[in-house]
Amino acid sequence: MTDVKNTGDCFQKKTGQNSIVQPLLTDLYQVTMAYAYWKTGKINGHAVFDLYFRKNPFNGEFTVFAGLEECLKFLEKFRYSESDIEYLRQILPTSVEEGFFEYLTTLTADSISFYSVKEGTVVFPRVPLIRIEGPLVVTQLLETTLLNLVNYASLMATNAARYRLAAGKLKLYEFGLRRAQGPDGGLSASKYSYIGGFDGTSNVLAGKLFNIPVKGTHAHAYITSFNSLDELINTLLIPKDGEVPNDFLQSSLKWRESIASMFNILLSEVSDGELAAFVSFALAFPNGFMALVDTYDVKRSGLINFCAVALALHEFGYQALGIRLDSGDLAYLSGVARSYFEKIGNQYNIPYFNKLNIMASNDINEETIISLNEQGHCIDSFGIGTHLVTCQKQPALGCVYKLVELDGEPRIKLSHDVAKVTIPGKKNVFRLYGNTFSLIDLLQRSDEEPPIMNEKVLCRHPFEESKRAYVIPSKVENLLLLQWKDGRIIRPMPNLQEIKENVHNSLKILRSDIKRSLNPTPYKVSVSDSLYHFLHKLWLDNAPIGELS
Amino acid sequence: MTDVKNTGDCFQKKTGQNSIVQPLLTDLYQVTMAYAYWKTGKINGHAVFDLYFRKNPFNGEFTVFAGLEECLKFLEKFRYSESDIEYLRQILPTSVEEGFFEYLTTLTADSISFYSVKEGTVVFPRVPLIRIEGPLVVTQLLETTLLNLVNYASLMATNAARYRLAAGKLKLYEFGLRRAQGPDGGLSASKYSYIGGFDGTSNVLAGKLFNIPVKGTHAHAYITSFNSLDELINTLLIPKDGEVPNDFLQSSLKWRESIASMFNILLSEVSDGELAAFVSFALAFPNGFMALVDTYDVKRSGLINFCAVALALHEFGYQALGIRLDSGDLAYLSGVARSYFEKIGNQYNIPYFNKLNIMASNDINEETIISLNEQGHCIDSFGIGTHLVTCQKQPALGCVYKLVELDGEPRIKLSHDVAKVTIPGKKNVFRLYGNTFSLIDLLQRSDEEPPIMNEKVLCRHPFEESKRAYVIPSKVENLLLLQWKDGRIIRPMPNLQEIKENVHNSLKILRSDIKRSLNPTPYKVSVSDSLYHFLHKLWLDNAPIGELS
Repeated sequence: MTDVKNTGDCFQKKTGQNSIVQPLLTDLYQVTMAYAYWKTGKINGHAVFDLYFRKNPFNGEFTVFAGLEECLKFLEKFRYSESDIEYLRQILPTSVEEGFFEYLTTLTADSISFYSVKEGTVVFPRVPLIRIEGPLVVTQLLETTLLNLVNYASLMATNAARYRLAAGKLKLYEFGLRRAQGPDGGLSASKYSYIGGFDGTSNVLAGKLFNIPVKGTHAHAYITSFNSLDELINTLLIPKDGEVPNDFLQSSLKWRESIASMFNILLSEVSDGELAAFVSFALAFPNGFMALVDTYDVKRSGLINFCAVALALHEFGYQALGIRLDSGDLAYLSGVARSYFEKIGNQYNIPYFNKLNIMASNDINEETIISLNEQGHCIDSFGIGTHLVTCQKQPALGCVYKLVELDGEPRIKLSHDVAKVTIPGKKNVFRLYGNTFSLIDLLQRSDEEPPIMNEKVLCRHPFEESKRAYVIPSKVENLLLLQWKDGRIIRPMPNLQEIKENVHNSLKILRSDIKRSLNPTPYKVSVSDSLYHFLHKLWLDNAPIGELS
Repeated sequence: MTDVKNTGDCFQKKTGQNSIVQPLLTDLYQVTMAYAYWKTGKINGHAVFDLYFRKNPFNGEFTVFAGLEECLKFLEKFRYSESDIEYLRQILPTSVEEGFFEYLTTLTADSISFYSVKEGTVVFPRVPLIRIEGPLVVTQLLETTLLNLVNYASLMATNAARYRLAAGKLKLYEFGLRRAQGPDGGLSASKYSYIGGFDGTSNVLAGKLFNIPVKGTHAHAYITSFNSLDELINTLLIPKDGEVPNDFLQSSLKWRESIASMFNILLSEVSDGELAAFVSFALAFPNGFMALVDTYDVKRSGLINFCAVALALHEFGYQALGIRLDSGDLAYLSGVARSYFEKIGNQYNIPYFNKLNIMASNDINEETIISLNEQGHCIDSFGIGTHLVTCQKQPALGCVYKLVELDGEPRIKLSHDVAKVTIPGKKNVFRLYGNTFSLIDLLQRSDEEPPIMNEKVLCRHPFEESKRAYVIPSKVENLLLLQWKDGRIIRPMPNLQEIKENVHNSLKILRSDIKRSLNPTPYKVSVSDSLYHFLHKLWLDNAPIGELS
């Protein structure tokens, strides 16, 4: 297993990874709406849009906001190229006036103000993660791309954070590139699972671009590529503190005899091809030997061969790292492996042997980890693929982007489904803290005075009249921060490590019953008294009185 | 609704869409294995790998193979850059020898032979979709990237093909960009859903890059951005065959009065803001008017306003296209809409009115379509997002890449789970046809004579001894075709349209019970008698005899 050094960020920003994040990465209706706005003289209406979601993913009660850096980079380069205009001219009806295309070439995001929650912050339904203000056409044209950039990033970071909560202090590695939804899906999975709490990835390009630790040992194909010991041509290894090479295969064979007899295994049951593979891998990585032990039979072959090679390495002054299990009953097999290691460690008085790393990597998901923890197991680290990177339990987060104000007038989208009613008007969001935990989020109209520390504030359920509470916050945090204005990113962009720490800290101030996997408690998102009345008056004013027929 | 012209492929290949598809887009263990192979002198062993899957997705019994073009483009540019090598040098242990890095700089895919099924062909479990032959190190280094490129592409094409089967002749549009797994996830979804049977996408960049028809009208935000009729500044429209502009709003208002009274709706119930939005959109797109009718109340507002504007357009010589429903009971509401259209069409003798397009787009999945078909509905087209693009029902296809032969010796990966046992050795695959349908796929050892048309051939189940059948094929198709050799793509690359047709034709020769959604019949994948005995001898030779203890 090669555990990789931190290499600084010298490789970042050298590739065109996001070359497809451009104004045309959008739905056509944004462009047709832009034309209709242009025709009707509404292009410069001052719009306010909220980007938020309605329901936490994975049957949970929290979400981690991510994707902000990519949104801001998109704003920086939001400009239609000549070739974009040429394409639009081809696909729009010939009746579309030339002046519109000329108008499009002048568009930038310079006229936009962009507020958002800090990347890596824990967020909840109905809270605007992003609030955008500016000319109607530009704000509308940004919708699809921003949703695309926030949805998967936040979903992935949330998923990873849930695995982290389930795994406690065990190490977690993202191994999902081969099953991810495309090349970029794989890269994003590596990046946002690291932010969410993973310790590294197998994805080399993600390591290079994002400075994430990279992990890897070998695959079954490596083991099956060896049929016999004769395939080993050079079997010499220089001891760690020596200069004269010695025969490493002979040492491994000698140890294998002792170990097989210690565990009552016939040598004929132990695969020679597997030993050849292990020996060759140890010769290549004497300081980083980690072996996949389930190609043939874990108990009767894989563990015996691994222990033999690990003891040979010990004799040569090196320390093996451990094993990976990729099939079978992981609770049971990890226990068997640990008992082998402890028996050998005690027998030969090699204390680190007792603590050799056991990694599991077969179709692991959040439930598997929770169930393994309940059963008891001896696993130190998990390599997680498909379930993590595709967010199999719920592969999309339903962020939406809604117009809440235009030229100072509030806008509301009604729906028979209360959860789909928008909270109108330009709003601020405050997080109110108790002494240890965050208590509640409070949405206010933008012209209200913010809540004050240690002063009582009335927080209301947005839709249920009788649900109200006074809160005396010991700390008040303004969640929506100005990130972009006048064509510039306003505040220093945190690096990945800092965002990762923000996730960690943000989750720490959330009560554990809100974070638990089974039947978590919902976190409260409230509105001020003023916003409550504003919302309900507007609702009544806009809802037609039905007629039963 | 803007339905877009075909623009030729002049925009294709102009972007760096796949700039991240490069040799480092892989798992680190491929590189550590490469070093171990290099150290042990095995780099030039002649390897054969099969890429295949074990189980069809979505509880179905077929899969559509896709992603080939991207694989071949990856082979073309498979080369480690200086910066890649520099990064690998930093992250690998310092003990890794310099010669290895020099070796990596010389690597290309020129030494590889790459066989595959034609892109867009229907395929089944255990059939190699791709067979790769060449030096062990290079073949191994390609694994992760090829899996990434095939897995999602094939999953997406299969998903789309299933929607197509469910929808029959109804139109299908992919609307999922905002919920896709990242920007590239969105683009790939557009591309492969088009291949799989969709009629177009909302994704403008996909249209530009892949020459796919693009569709779109407007969003709820467009409707809610209008509060009243006063917001319409210019309400003049030139009739289609005229020159003198006339007041379009007045015409719409006049028609609205008639229609409201025809359906016993009070004018006070009908939203003026919605009418303003529809009128402005019709003024921008008089030839392409399609309206989202569920912002307020479909029956009492949306449909009344739409019909009013559509009749005004008719008066001006234009034809409206139809409506989109994005919420509520789609079977019921589409029926109501159709009855409105028919009543008006008959009343005013406007035949096309009866056939106005009804599009539905609220959280549609395969089951929704099947259920709507059972209930009866009046929908003409579906816009499908989240469920389609994230493949929510099963967001990953489990393709694997297994070593089956090395230096002429077969390799087998055993497993307690029979489904995971590899079929060893270099193999060919033939599809045997009856008069109308394909009957069975047959895997043979590569040195066997291919089956011959109208001659009896024995086909065996790979694992169940008693399951055998003689087949007399009326046509024999060799599925694995040479695509890449000596550093060159061998055969002309089909364009997207041709691949789409291949999907269509390939599905046509599959019996309908294999394609049905509920309890489909498995298609048979067999092995030749020779391969059967070869497989089972190798299995016995390699499986250790257990010992109960």
